[in-house]
Amino acid sequence: MKRKETTIINSEMKIEVQPPASQWRELIARPYSKNKILTSKIKSILDHVRKNGDSALIKYTAEFDKVNLDTLKVSPKEIENAAEEVSPELKKALLHAKKNIEIFHRAQNEKSIKIKTDIGVSCWRKSVAIEKVGLYIPGGNAPLFSTLLMLAIPAIAAGCKEIIVATPPSMEGKIHPAILYCCKILGLASIYKVGGAQAIAAMAFGTESIPAVYKIFGPGNQFVSTAKQLVSEEGVAIDLVAGPSELAVYADESCIPPFVAADLLSQAEHGADSQVMLVASSRRIAQEIIKNINDQKKNLPREHFIEQSLQHSRFVVLKNPDSAFALLNLYAPEHLIIASDHAMQLSEKVQNAGSVFIGNYSSESAGDYATGTNHTLPTSSYAKTHSGVSLDSFIKKITFQEVTPKGVLQIGHTVQILAEAEGLKAHAGAVTIRLNYLNKKS
Amino acid sequence: MKRKETTIINSEMKIEVQPPASQWRELIARPYSKNKILTSKIKSILDHVRKNGDSALIKYTAEFDKVNLDTLKVSPKEIENAAEEVSPELKKALLHAKKNIEIFHRAQNEKSIKIKTDIGVSCWRKSVAIEKVGLYIPGGNAPLFSTLLMLAIPAIAAGCKEIIVATPPSMEGKIHPAILYCCKILGLASIYKVGGAQAIAAMAFGTESIPAVYKIFGPGNQFVSTAKQLVSEEGVAIDLVAGPSELAVYADESCIPPFVAADLLSQAEHGADSQVMLVASSRRIAQEIIKNINDQKKNLPREHFIEQSLQHSRFVVLKNPDSAFALLNLYAPEHLIIASDHAMQLSEKVQNAGSVFIGNYSSESAGDYATGTNHTLPTSSYAKTHSGVSLDSFIKKITFQEVTPKGVLQIGHTVQILAEAEGLKAHAGAVTIRLNYLNKKS
Repeated sequence: MKRKETTIINSEMKIEVQPPASQWRELIARPYSKNKILTSKIKSILDHVRKNGDSALIKYTAEFDKVNLDTLKVSPKEIENAAEEVSPELKKALLHAKKNIEIFHRAQNEKSIKIKTDIGVSCWRKSVAIEKVGLYIPGGNAPLFSTLLMLAIPAIAAGCKEIIVATPPSMEGKIHPAILYCCKILGLASIYKVGGAQAIAAMAFGTESIPAVYKIFGPGNQFVSTAKQLVSEEGVAIDLVAGPSELAVYADESCIPPFVAADLLSQAEHGADSQVMLVASSRRIAQEIIKNINDQKKNLPREHFIEQSLQHSRFVVLKNPDSAFALLNLYAPEHLIIASDHAMQLSEKVQNAGSVFIGNYSSESAGDYATGTNHTLPTSSYAKTHSGVSLDSFIKKITFQEVTPKGVLQIGHTVQILAEAEGLKAHAGAVTIRLNYLNKKS
Repeated sequence: MKRKETTIINSEMKIEVQPPASQWRELIARPYSKNKILTSKIKSILDHVRKNGDSALIKYTAEFDKVNLDTLKVSPKEIENAAEEVSPELKKALLHAKKNIEIFHRAQNEKSIKIKTDIGVSCWRKSVAIEKVGLYIPGGNAPLFSTLLMLAIPAIAAGCKEIIVATPPSMEGKIHPAILYCCKILGLASIYKVGGAQAIAAMAFGTESIPAVYKIFGPGNQFVSTAKQLVSEEGVAIDLVAGPSELAVYADESCIPPFVAADLLSQAEHGADSQVMLVASSRRIAQEIIKNINDQKKNLPREHFIEQSLQHSRFVVLKNPDSAFALLNLYAPEHLIIASDHAMQLSEKVQNAGSVFIGNYSSESAGDYATGTNHTLPTSSYAKTHSGVSLDSFIKKITFQEVTPKGVLQIGHTVQILAEAEGLKAHAGAVTIRLNYLNKKS
């Protein structure tokens, strides 16, 4: 075990050189948010919406979004008019991203394959779309229309019959035109002006104007994510438990330090609780990347978030790539960039991550918008057990089996023996009655 | 809307003839269990195990399983000796079931396919096994060795590195030999004598002798399922929220009534809270099936469970198959038998079900043990959104993307436009720095 050295570059960013494995737990700890909103407050919002429907939604929208609405549903005219407010350049970019996301997600459709497991026994699985889904899209000053593309495209590719969208209105009672333009090009018509916990409640329980759905998708603040967790305990499915966004970068001697710095900053601008981790193959590389961060961050508008985020970020040096990836797998980051000319080979070592970016030219932001992969990904080390959103998130696989009379003769005795041994006489009986019938017939 | 008629066959089983859709919600209601165990009691078990590790497990095992253990881990010798206590006939049946389950689950392994979404942009998904999994197997007088096969076979096929088994000991401190024999033929060596909420706590948090795992699988009583729900809120993944078992049968004129009766009884014997639903195409068929139930049930040992279960079961007549399957899809049963010569064609109407049994010779019990499909399935209408356990349950899919310099030139501008429009300047910057670099080079 090597001695741990710590080099302090400036007051915020210190480099952990060759930390022993005993210290890794501490290195991978996620920054906890300090603004824990009381679950009881959110429970009361859910209860009010359940009891009072639309009138509760209108009340909460007045309280939280500062606007009095008459109708919650966006009109066809509003959708039509929005297109005029979106620049041709943004329209073109949205269509480009849409195309790539569609290509990747449509390729996830699986064919049903019948497997003959025994004489007279066939088994198969069939992917069937979840009938009713609700997509939550955060609004405010950074309207996440990219998230709408990421959720609606796989929902449509899966064949969900009813897709509804909830997103909070501005103080003028409007939805951002880029969001409505996306709905238009996707063919979505059920869009509701409601945000926060009240939107989750509406989609979970249904109101006069908003239909209840079976599964709710989408990111949001603590009101939204706590509300999702609470309705999931009542049987409504949810996509993922969302925590603050994360990026880990592995950088070796072949990385391009200004690129890595730009990637780490792009993650840090998400919010004060975003986390970035750099695992570099040498102290020199780590130092050079930090120098670039300090140079680049001056020119960025969301510097307040970036400074706070960098304070709880990690800069680690591990010379051996196996050690580096052991730490990264323990961390299980939402995003992992492998900034190296040997990225493809190194990617074989990845066990736990949401989405992986191969090589110096694959920035996280490319995947956030336009490579075609989904950007709704597991955070808070959920990547150890969970996948990001994909077409799979909008389907369930039903198993089927067909046992012919020959099949009953082939597996019947086995079923009888096993059922009897488990003390389940009637289970054995369901086979016995068929075996007797077949024996009588023959 | 037809008039609803009710025919009472005996005090327990009444037939609902052509119930209008407005009454369907009531028909599909699940029987609620009356033994709600206090969550606080289970929380205290979890806390004690977290704090005191093995000593808490030994204390709870003395309290609940009435046995004082020195060691929790099953010794290699115990596994070896168990084989001698299992009859050759049962061994043969276990190996037969194992073979079929392996064939079906191994076929679920998916190859990674690279998708070129744009010029210079490749995206793919890779299935990676969840590293550490824990399988809970209920014990007692009906040891569910079949569940061990159903959970361990996909775990092994997925490539999970660490697979541990927890199952409660008998009052003699032993594990049922058939369970140990299954472990032997599957190559599992980490088996622990611990049950109930304390077993779930041990696998979630780890103790001196039991390693913590990332995902916990397996059925159990309310102690077990509540404990699973509680640890899942702390970030440990779980397979499914388990409720009482259910079977629905669709039976038309081509069904064989004694077979259907035997199938309904096999479900009813599971427990007092099991639910069976029959949807028949005519009153005559329904009556004949009920007559057969009354005849057959006399000879069954678990009659107490069967009587209680039948009391809250449903017998419905819907003449139109589309209506019948609309009701069945709303019910979303764990198991669905289509007892008809036209079962394959009718199965096209299935939208929500865990596992479907095609035709008169496919009994549920065949699938419970030996067709090869998994018997760990979504209950309580979770089949609307969830699949049963499969190889998918033991993996997560990591997305990868590789953007070449050509790819940056192809999608870079789109990423810049979208990131700027979402107010994420540093996201745009991560692409701009690469575009500038490439433009300078050329």
